[in-house]
Amino acid sequence: MPVPGPGYSITVRVEAPPSSSAAGDLTTAVGQVGGVLTAFDVVESHADAIVVDISVNVLSADHAEDTRQALDALPGVKVRKVSDRTFLIHLGGKLEVSPKVALRNRDDLSRAYTPGVARVCQAIAANPEDARRLTIKRNTVAVVTDGSAVLGLGNIGPAAALPVMEGKAALFKKFADVDAWPVCLDTQDTEEIISIVKALAPVYAGINLEDIAAPRCFEIEARLREKLDIPVFHDDQHGTAIVVVAALRNALRVVGKNMADCKIVISGVGAAGSAIIRLLLRKGPADIVAADIDGIVHSARPNLDDNLRSIAERTNKENVSGTLHEALAGADVFIGVSAPNLFGAEQVRSMAADPIVFALANPDPEVDPMEAQRHAAVVATGRSDYPNQINNVLAFPGVFRGLLDAQAHQIDDEMLLAAADAIADVVVDGRLNASFIVPSVFDSAVAPAVADAVKAAARRENA
Amino acid sequence: MPVPGPGYSITVRVEAPPSSSAAGDLTTAVGQVGGVLTAFDVVESHADAIVVDISVNVLSADHAEDTRQALDALPGVKVRKVSDRTFLIHLGGKLEVSPKVALRNRDDLSRAYTPGVARVCQAIAANPEDARRLTIKRNTVAVVTDGSAVLGLGNIGPAAALPVMEGKAALFKKFADVDAWPVCLDTQDTEEIISIVKALAPVYAGINLEDIAAPRCFEIEARLREKLDIPVFHDDQHGTAIVVVAALRNALRVVGKNMADCKIVISGVGAAGSAIIRLLLRKGPADIVAADIDGIVHSARPNLDDNLRSIAERTNKENVSGTLHEALAGADVFIGVSAPNLFGAEQVRSMAADPIVFALANPDPEVDPMEAQRHAAVVATGRSDYPNQINNVLAFPGVFRGLLDAQAHQIDDEMLLAAADAIADVVVDGRLNASFIVPSVFDSAVAPAVADAVKAAARRENA
Repeated sequence: MPVPGPGYSITVRVEAPPSSSAAGDLTTAVGQVGGVLTAFDVVESHADAIVVDISVNVLSADHAEDTRQALDALPGVKVRKVSDRTFLIHLGGKLEVSPKVALRNRDDLSRAYTPGVARVCQAIAANPEDARRLTIKRNTVAVVTDGSAVLGLGNIGPAAALPVMEGKAALFKKFADVDAWPVCLDTQDTEEIISIVKALAPVYAGINLEDIAAPRCFEIEARLREKLDIPVFHDDQHGTAIVVVAALRNALRVVGKNMADCKIVISGVGAAGSAIIRLLLRKGPADIVAADIDGIVHSARPNLDDNLRSIAERTNKENVSGTLHEALAGADVFIGVSAPNLFGAEQVRSMAADPIVFALANPDPEVDPMEAQRHAAVVATGRSDYPNQINNVLAFPGVFRGLLDAQAHQIDDEMLLAAADAIADVVVDGRLNASFIVPSVFDSAVAPAVADAVKAAARRENA
Repeated sequence: MPVPGPGYSITVRVEAPPSSSAAGDLTTAVGQVGGVLTAFDVVESHADAIVVDISVNVLSADHAEDTRQALDALPGVKVRKVSDRTFLIHLGGKLEVSPKVALRNRDDLSRAYTPGVARVCQAIAANPEDARRLTIKRNTVAVVTDGSAVLGLGNIGPAAALPVMEGKAALFKKFADVDAWPVCLDTQDTEEIISIVKALAPVYAGINLEDIAAPRCFEIEARLREKLDIPVFHDDQHGTAIVVVAALRNALRVVGKNMADCKIVISGVGAAGSAIIRLLLRKGPADIVAADIDGIVHSARPNLDDNLRSIAERTNKENVSGTLHEALAGADVFIGVSAPNLFGAEQVRSMAADPIVFALANPDPEVDPMEAQRHAAVVATGRSDYPNQINNVLAFPGVFRGLLDAQAHQIDDEMLLAAADAIADVVVDGRLNASFIVPSVFDSAVAPAVADAVKAAARRENA
């Protein structure tokens, strides 16, 4: 049974009798329905009653209701209110836009706004590159989505995607002091998205595409890269690929294998899978075999689209066909960015010695991580409740910090690989082990290391 | 001769001899070339020399150079460096995007970002109005420009317009705690601007159009008002009109005239002039006569466009033709939003008794304010170095605060008039006089008063 986490956390306010057993009764009731108690605060105390806020992690809305009922059923206990703590922190949004300049008096106003600002405008009109010096463009990234592939929720639209984009922008600031702004577009037309992002570009020094469905995302990215003189990054592709490559480098260190000897099986050829394949090919593995819902991707498979055809051309050297299960036999590495519960312990056992399993489908991985661990040397997931979480937060803040600092006009695979190496290198030999192949997302060394690596690569290439 | 203001302010770092007369020599030299000294800081002191930062307001780049040379020419004095203080405060831009939520640890991340955020997204997908509760939409306004009519600088484009839009956003936050974001569009196509703003709308609860050239701005505003369920405000029109109406109400209090008896002449029928006419007509003046570069607007004038035809139909009851000078004869009020130096003291003298003159062309008014004062009872300008500055900062922050608090879906003339009355009412009888018809832009009572009035009007109309 899954353990309730802080992603669904409620606070139940109850009135209870002022008896010595009250606290024990309340916490026991929470535990009996499977809730995880995280805080117990007496907020009022009277002669005849106490009022207590009980914070509980639960699994679902039904579980929250079970918890409420269990408390309400106790003798003398009355539930006053149930608050959803997750919703509470989202109230009113998660970002604010603040002035960096003082506006206390007329002199401040004359410099920051009219009439002084006119000279700054004229300087930029005369020399457009000055915008990177004299405006927010210098440090600002657009987080662009059309709401078509949000988390695992699918096509929920731009308004419902906004909480994720706000969260992303908050992470940009927290981890890398990048000012990021959500751009949630009320259109899913490829051409319109491209022309809108192009029109918005004067304010930004970088574009982070986010949660846009494949294959539309590929064309949007490619066309914007042609049209714009600022880097265009698609986090679902490039961010994921960076962290996977970093994690795989360290997993291979753990098992003592070389990339050049590895056969890698990849399940899922959407945005993430395609980018992982492209970046891994730069690392020279023995072979990569990709699979999707129709089985192994090979050049003779009917109805290949452009993306699949390109993958078929660059992978699967022996042009094998068959199922994912067949592909796994003898493979050194499995990387899944696809769907839940595709295989079990038996298939892991069919892999080569010391297999590496990255089962990244969220929230339910391709193989149960506990099952996989019975036979695999290293297991990673996308979840925070198992070791080795493959989390894009390790990549995107530092990548953009480096791009902005280099005033880069573009981004390429060299920079992505530099970012991957930087993340991997943060885990020094003494700390590296099968349960620790990537640093914590809260390791403050990560973003600066990634930024330095990306900045150096951008400068080297004069990007 | 104009007096240098803080809009162009330099700091000159000089080495000077450590003599007792050094300070006097330096400040005298600044004064002799007409610079206004604002600060004198000794930053280093040695046995053989002192290093001083001298801050000076100047008029122009040439004047800054004259100041530098005057200092450099003093015996024993050497100018090390001249910094432009206006540019210094714009370096790196004037806004930042900050998280309002803590992201200290895994629990924070689980609530603000994945996996907790997914439930917030689902709630909005199920009930789109929840976006105003659970996202930044609640408090966020887009400041939209195409860079086609920026300040008095004309069509300088979106990148060069950004410093103004940043300043505007900073004022929104400072005066009304509104989170505003610059949207500088790299297109001047009316249809494209409309479709882009429509696509961007999910993130915003209001649109502030800014510095878009007439007549394009009228169509963009009208069409967006049809298409969007959030208020669309064009500051150059509505903000200016609000403050003009407020100022005129108080000017009439000063001279003891009634609006119903006033003949008002308006010079300029662009964005501002057209909106002023529309709003003033709601106040029932005796008559309004509008004029532009071709003279008085009347229904028989050839080549009237839609906007001018509409103005001709609604103004100029006696259908007079002629020049602006002719229109001024016998008028009670002049309001100029047009061009510099159109008339002199003689035309002011030709107006009715106790004339009111609002000469708002910037930086050079329609009539020299000192000249106008010889005959006018009340004079107002757009400049900060004369009394009665007509400044949109009095209106837009409070207007949007009120709209956001009311969760208004639209804005109409009732709300604009409510805002104008609120601004006028801040100047109580005891403080009202010919040199004080509008409150200071730093009067902290203004924005809340405007917000309350707009909010009440929006609620009354269920907007």
